[in-house]
Amino acid sequence: MGRKRLDEDELKAALAELPGWSQAGDAITAAYPFDGYEAAFAFATRVALYAQRVDHHPDLLVQWGKVTVTWSTHDAGGVTRRDVEGARYVGEFVRAQSSPTR
Amino acid sequence: MGRKRLDEDELKAALAELPGWSQAGDAITAAYPFDGYEAAFAFATRVALYAQRVDHHPDLLVQWGKVTVTWSTHDAGGVTRRDVEGARYVGEFVRAQSSPTR
Repeated sequence: MGRKRLDEDELKAALAELPGWSQAGDAITAAYPFDGYEAAFAFATRVALYAQRVDHHPDLLVQWGKVTVTWSTHDAGGVTRRDVEGARYVGEFVRAQSSPTR
Repeated sequence: MGRKRLDEDELKAALAELPGWSQAGDAITAAYPFDGYEAAFAFATRVALYAQRVDHHPDLLVQWGKVTVTWSTHDAGGVTRRDVEGARYVGEFVRAQSSPTR
């Protein structure tokens, strides 16, 4: 379940509900700003723990004051419901701490 | 100390001593393979802890089975001794666990 690649319309509809997220090739991505490295890495760690729980793992780029999260489902060759769920989860738990850039 | 940008010859000499590391614009970068996400994230965490200790922080891209570490000194607009030290440290502690790709 949730492992089927979304078509263009489904992806567009999903992104409309995900503030800060955009399509990047076969993936969806968002960058969240943080105050320095500690807060950024702590956020990345929380995403990694979530990823382990749901057994679906995003790319995480940690930089000074910024974390970029990118979800894609390799087996499906694109974005699936699982990726949208991951993006939603990240967006919800980060909302109180930070706002997405880009 | 170590905050002056290396010139081309200095950078070339430094990279010759850093297996797996290469120049990427104003930075040096290496990708290390791991067995899955847990090992990759654990490695990234160790690099982050080192970064906090030396107060110099690389970009860390964590992906399934791979971590890409990129060092640059923003204030110097390029690669400094501090970046070379960081790359050397990462290369030394990872040697027993993994080998660099690329």
